[in-house]
Amino acid sequence: RYGYFGRVTPEVVRVMFCNVSGCLTDGRIFLSSSAQEMVSVNVKDTTGIRMLQREKVEVVLLISKEDPVVRSLGKKLAKRTGCKVIRVGEEPLDDLKLLVRRMKLKWKDVAYMGNDKPDVNCLNLAGLSAVPADAPVVAINAAKYTCHQVGGMGAVREFAEHILLQKQKAKEKLMKTFLDFMKS
Amino acid sequence: RYGYFGRVTPEVVRVMFCNVSGCLTDGRIFLSSSAQEMVSVNVKDTTGIRMLQREKVEVVLLISKEDPVVRSLGKKLAKRTGCKVIRVGEEPLDDLKLLVRRMKLKWKDVAYMGNDKPDVNCLNLAGLSAVPADAPVVAINAAKYTCHQVGGMGAVREFAEHILLQKQKAKEKLMKTFLDFMKS
Amino acid sequence: RYGYFGRVTPEVVRVMFCNVSGCLTDGRIFLSSSAQEMVSVNVKDTTGIRMLQREKVEVVLLISKEDPVVRSLGKKLAKRTGCKVIRVGEEPLDDLKLLVRRMKLKWKDVAYMGNDKPDVNCLNLAGLSAVPADAPVVAINAAKYTCHQVGGMGAVREFAEHILLQKQKAKEKLMKTFLDFMKS
Amino acid sequence: RYGYFGRVTPEVVRVMFCNVSGCLTDGRIFLSSSAQEMVSVNVKDTTGIRMLQREKVEVVLLISKEDPVVRSLGKKLAKRTGCKVIRVGEEPLDDLKLLVRRMKLKWKDVAYMGNDKPDVNCLNLAGLSAVPADAPVVAINAAKYTCHQVGGMGAVREFAEHILLQKQKAKEKLMKTFLDFMKS
Repeated sequence: RYGYFGRVTPEVVRVMFCNVSGCLTDGRIFLSSSAQEMVSVNVKDTTGIRMLQREKVEVVLLISKEDPVVRSLGKKLAKRTGCKVIRVGEEPLDDLKLLVRRMKLKWKDVAYMGNDKPDVNCLNLAGLSAVPADAPVVAINAAKYTCHQVGGMGAVREFAEHILLQKQKAKEKLMKTFLDFMKS
Repeated sequence: RYGYFGRVTPEVVRVMFCNVSGCLTDGRIFLSSSAQEMVSVNVKDTTGIRMLQREKVEVVLLISKEDPVVRSLGKKLAKRTGCKVIRVGEEPLDDLKLLVRRMKLKWKDVAYMGNDKPDVNCLNLAGLSAVPADAPVVAINAAKYTCHQVGGMGAVREFAEHILLQKQKAKEKLMKTFLDFMKS
Repeated sequence: RYGYFGRVTPEVVRVMFCNVSGCLTDGRIFLSSSAQEMVSVNVKDTTGIRMLQREKVEVVLLISKEDPVVRSLGKKLAKRTGCKVIRVGEEPLDDLKLLVRRMKLKWKDVAYMGNDKPDVNCLNLAGLSAVPADAPVVAINAAKYTCHQVGGMGAVREFAEHILLQKQKAKEKLMKTFLDFMKS
Repeated sequence: RYGYFGRVTPEVVRVMFCNVSGCLTDGRIFLSSSAQEMVSVNVKDTTGIRMLQREKVEVVLLISKEDPVVRSLGKKLAKRTGCKVIRVGEEPLDDLKLLVRRMKLKWKDVAYMGNDKPDVNCLNLAGLSAVPADAPVVAINAAKYTCHQVGGMGAVREFAEHILLQKQKAKEKLMKTFLDFMKS
């Protein structure tokens, strides 16, 4: 129990990885024969991202190397959300393993939001994980939390509030443990 | 009770402030790697705004200084709705306080529509206030009226009808008070 | 009863007038600071229009003189649907009265689809009339039929099927009256 | 029963034909007076298509010769989905009959997804067939499977999973029949 104090921020998420397609967007891509593809992002979700950033949770957006549309939007998304945007392959875990180690984090310090089969391993591994309400069953089963909101319509915001609530609870628990210890 | 007659329009809204993102729009912003950002506005809501304008309620649209997309649409929105469009900071109340005083109004003559945490103070202060059905709990709790419609799909229209109904009721009440007074 | 045979197509709609904003579209207008405005039209509804045209019901689309966006789309809509597109003022009845007379029709031969207050007089007058499920109460009360589908998502198609069903019923009734008469 | 072994892949879909408008898209076409038309495609559905392709089910997208918008998007859709895109007339069966014969397939090896009246004959004939939840009754009645998802929002993905499940079941049945036969 005492060793518990050895870490600076206990049971608290330090970074959130978020799959763009179907989490930050509603999964729709608008195609036109002449113009560039288009996706939509909700102000609720970008507000949720800002809420995390203000509480020192870094948010990293994941875009698939296989998805040419969202890839071309990387810069716009980075500018709009203030997030780092990275490209991941068919198994995002391969890309993130290295990154998590380099950030000197453990997977229990990581929050992950995904919405389909390729996200399953990350959803299982992360300390906190979530899927939008409209995710396929295979992803819902792997996630620790299923949002009431669908992708692109507030799911990221909902998960952000969930993360901040857990952080608040962890802080209160730490404070209580500390006070109990002082009294003993 | 007699002093009540001292004001020209009792208990009646004179101006409505309306946050654009998430109230007049559904909160979605369409991004493309090549083109300008895009938002959608519903004809129901612009009709609602016209209904207010016809009844001498000025409608002022609020766009966040932090939101580069909606800011660039200010002129289009002004032209489309016939509304004044003003930029507000993180706390809209700071910007509106001055404006309300300059318009020689009290906050009880003001209607306010918002949809998130930054709107809470204005929602609390305004004589009439509303949020769309899909607003976060923190904003719903501060608003006097929660619309059945979601943002960008008729919430502004619904609030406009609510305001006009209150105005009608206030007129009828004034008329009744006046007639009772004449009979007494 | 015999005079009833004097008209070529009894109780049968000859022309359908359809308000574009909120009936053929979902009421949303997409705005961008650089590009032209955009609206969406559903293939279900354009199929419904074709079903009517094949049964010799002319479909005329109405766009408001006050609505700059839809006005600029008049040509595209005409081309896409094969319909005549006409501009109407604040009271569409004023524009249509003349047209109906010129077409040598009575208002009971007319079907009208609208979705708001300005459509009320036409909804009342037309032999068949409908509003989308998401129309305001004032329009629902004036319409003879309220669609289960919302605007821009199949309401026009639903009304088209309703019209064709009425036409079918009227034909069968006429046939029965004729046969009864021959037997008598 | 023994003749059953004569075919290489029993009761298993080899090709899926999918109507683009209203199945892969939600039926909406975005019109602007200046720009090219636009439709939206969902990442869930393109994922479903990839799932079929990985299991050696060819997916062929059908676009109507009558639909100028989707026609111009043929190349983009082909590139995005890796599917062959072909144009069909008012009765898709006329175009597909020849194709199915040339592919040396029987109609019971074919899966078909459509969403309206013109698809009825193909829906009836195909071994597996489906419509999105929001299809008209005439199409629902002809289809063997009605998706819970609407068009453009996961219906294609749902049908893909349905096809793969049937394929799995057929394989298991074949294996059981084989084992029973060996034991006898």
